[in-house]
Amino acid sequence: MQQEAIVADKMNEGITAPKGFRSAGIHCGIKKSRKDLALIVSDLPATAAAVFTLNKVQAAPVLISKRHLDESETFKAIIVNSGNANACTGERGFQDAVTMANETAKVLGVKSKEIFVASTGVIGEPLPIVKIINGIHQIAKQVDESEYISTAEAIMTTDTFVKSFSSTFEIDGKIVSIGGIAKGSGMIHPNMATMLAFITTDASIEKNVFQGLLKTVTDKTFNRIVVDGDTSTNDMVVALANGASGTDPLQPQTESYKIFEEHLYEVLKKLSIDIVIDGEGATKLIEITVEGALSDSDAEKAARTVALSPLVKTAIHGEDANWGRIIAAVGYSGIDFNPDKFEIIINDVPILKQNYFVTLPNAEANKTLKSRNINLKIKLNMGTGTSTVWTCDFSEEYVKINGSYRT
Amino acid sequence: MQQEAIVADKMNEGITAPKGFRSAGIHCGIKKSRKDLALIVSDLPATAAAVFTLNKVQAAPVLISKRHLDESETFKAIIVNSGNANACTGERGFQDAVTMANETAKVLGVKSKEIFVASTGVIGEPLPIVKIINGIHQIAKQVDESEYISTAEAIMTTDTFVKSFSSTFEIDGKIVSIGGIAKGSGMIHPNMATMLAFITTDASIEKNVFQGLLKTVTDKTFNRIVVDGDTSTNDMVVALANGASGTDPLQPQTESYKIFEEHLYEVLKKLSIDIVIDGEGATKLIEITVEGALSDSDAEKAARTVALSPLVKTAIHGEDANWGRIIAAVGYSGIDFNPDKFEIIINDVPILKQNYFVTLPNAEANKTLKSRNINLKIKLNMGTGTSTVWTCDFSEEYVKINGSYRT
Repeated sequence: MQQEAIVADKMNEGITAPKGFRSAGIHCGIKKSRKDLALIVSDLPATAAAVFTLNKVQAAPVLISKRHLDESETFKAIIVNSGNANACTGERGFQDAVTMANETAKVLGVKSKEIFVASTGVIGEPLPIVKIINGIHQIAKQVDESEYISTAEAIMTTDTFVKSFSSTFEIDGKIVSIGGIAKGSGMIHPNMATMLAFITTDASIEKNVFQGLLKTVTDKTFNRIVVDGDTSTNDMVVALANGASGTDPLQPQTESYKIFEEHLYEVLKKLSIDIVIDGEGATKLIEITVEGALSDSDAEKAARTVALSPLVKTAIHGEDANWGRIIAAVGYSGIDFNPDKFEIIINDVPILKQNYFVTLPNAEANKTLKSRNINLKIKLNMGTGTSTVWTCDFSEEYVKINGSYRT
Repeated sequence: MQQEAIVADKMNEGITAPKGFRSAGIHCGIKKSRKDLALIVSDLPATAAAVFTLNKVQAAPVLISKRHLDESETFKAIIVNSGNANACTGERGFQDAVTMANETAKVLGVKSKEIFVASTGVIGEPLPIVKIINGIHQIAKQVDESEYISTAEAIMTTDTFVKSFSSTFEIDGKIVSIGGIAKGSGMIHPNMATMLAFITTDASIEKNVFQGLLKTVTDKTFNRIVVDGDTSTNDMVVALANGASGTDPLQPQTESYKIFEEHLYEVLKKLSIDIVIDGEGATKLIEITVEGALSDSDAEKAARTVALSPLVKTAIHGEDANWGRIIAAVGYSGIDFNPDKFEIIINDVPILKQNYFVTLPNAEANKTLKSRNINLKIKLNMGTGTSTVWTCDFSEEYVKINGSYRT
């Protein structure tokens, strides 16, 4: 349903919006019947940038993709399977990830190091590699500009809707597009937790410049979302730039670069927020902004701690404007602040002013939480540090989904 | 029900097991009908030790009790209310806490600084201080050796059973007892989160020695339990020692001291585990031991991270031996380890051996989680560091309770 609404909105809301990209998503047999294999191909050799999970335990596809990013200057494709994470699978898992890259390279007639590999799903079970090899041969024939939705579907696990978006704009008289797809749902924590995102653009940008830019924008988007605090073994954001728009290579500190950065931010922010909205069991999107901290990093620490507090997340779920839990969470975040100066504003309604002045009766304050989108602003009145994170509420449904994930 | 079983077990399983203590628990009108005011009195002047919340936001009773601990050498009583935390209540809250100490001192004919004050309940609402003053006058007449269960009841909030325990033993030919009560439920995090515990003993122990001992034992018990990671504004453990057993003052590094420490550990551990068992919505007690870390502090970091992971807690709730989530949690704990050497043992059954060797089919492994008590052992095979923490599972019930706490 959701995906049809998105598609109707624009001509191409996905990774094939930029020129010179084709993709497909198919069912190869890892999952029972849903799509589980995606391939994104750039017709021209592309530069790439990527950000990987910080978990000490890194899945085989993460290790291979990191190696390829280091070893190659140009890239041709991203092969992704869902339903099995190929994590904690030892030497065999590593070989399976190598095989995925090798087979994809073979059918495309390129080098193995030009391929990124990603996996998501259950940890600790070996990949059904024969099914995947057969799938790779099949999917390579199906890649097309029109298959961006099936591609987005094929990377989903417990996601309930497709996350696909694009932005088209002009640079130096040339039409440039950025497209992206993502999967999230559960385990989403700031530093790259079970989350995959693939970004394409027909802009031209050197590998090193692209890497710096992707890191900067990821830190303000994907790394600012919090679902449950768990960070996964498999997360990655991979971006390809194939230059098919005909622009000159983007140079930092130019107007063109700034325009590109803004649109990249727009695409990544949209995908980030879609991931939060689709958090397991989520019923509300919560934007938490901390202002007036002694530093930006203090503000971020406080915002993240509030976003991770199960007590705050369940209170918001229950539409209980329990500001005591919010101040208590900031209290154990480890930052320096004066509780007497604490202020809370929910959806533009001041709930708590300085010196613990409660502006409204509970029943009135609770009404600010009725909407699906919650804007929670915390003012510390200590300095100029500020930060925003996005999270969702914690529902009974979250527990149900995660208590029976493998059964 | 539970409390009757406990009472039947021994003569006096509470804070009046030690000689020279009396107590009571009454309804004074903070809650609708349940008991909400407790008083514990030592007939002789007692020494005291106390450990307080590390939350930056500290409730008024915490501030007052800390001050009294510093200012006085002897102590006579602990006054506790439940139903209202007197936290984030500003200057008025501070005065109310002073009033609670002053009134208690007045009715007992002692100095205000000899009184500890504790509160637990909703944050940010002023205390109904007149009801409490009346309650203090009433409860002072009711303190008795037989009222230890009503005392334990009066400090409860969302607790579903009374947490009361005692241990009686011999030191130098004298009979010595340690008694204790606690309240927990929700918001229990290592470093003193919404948790109250009051300990009495008729041993003799100097204030400074007692403080060191309480800190040591608290670090191994109350600070090793994890319910949901939120830490509160009000937590404290207060212990009184009145010397009524007739023992000489306990000196560190003596046999007597060692015996006393063991029994103090026994009492605090029992209360700690009762708090975990009674975690909001909890259906399982989980003991997590990490062995073979590079250091004890690494082991503790890993154990705590696993204990806090909503994905691990919901999987155990669903009786899904999803070891991938356990290894992923250790992976983001920040400690150094080699995933290839990771081993997991659940209730003495090896689930995962080194090099990701899975010993059992999922369905078999899941059976290890059928029992109410789960012993989860994680072997890192890196060094000799070890640590144990206790936590509970995460159920739909937790979300229900916490989404509607104030309604």
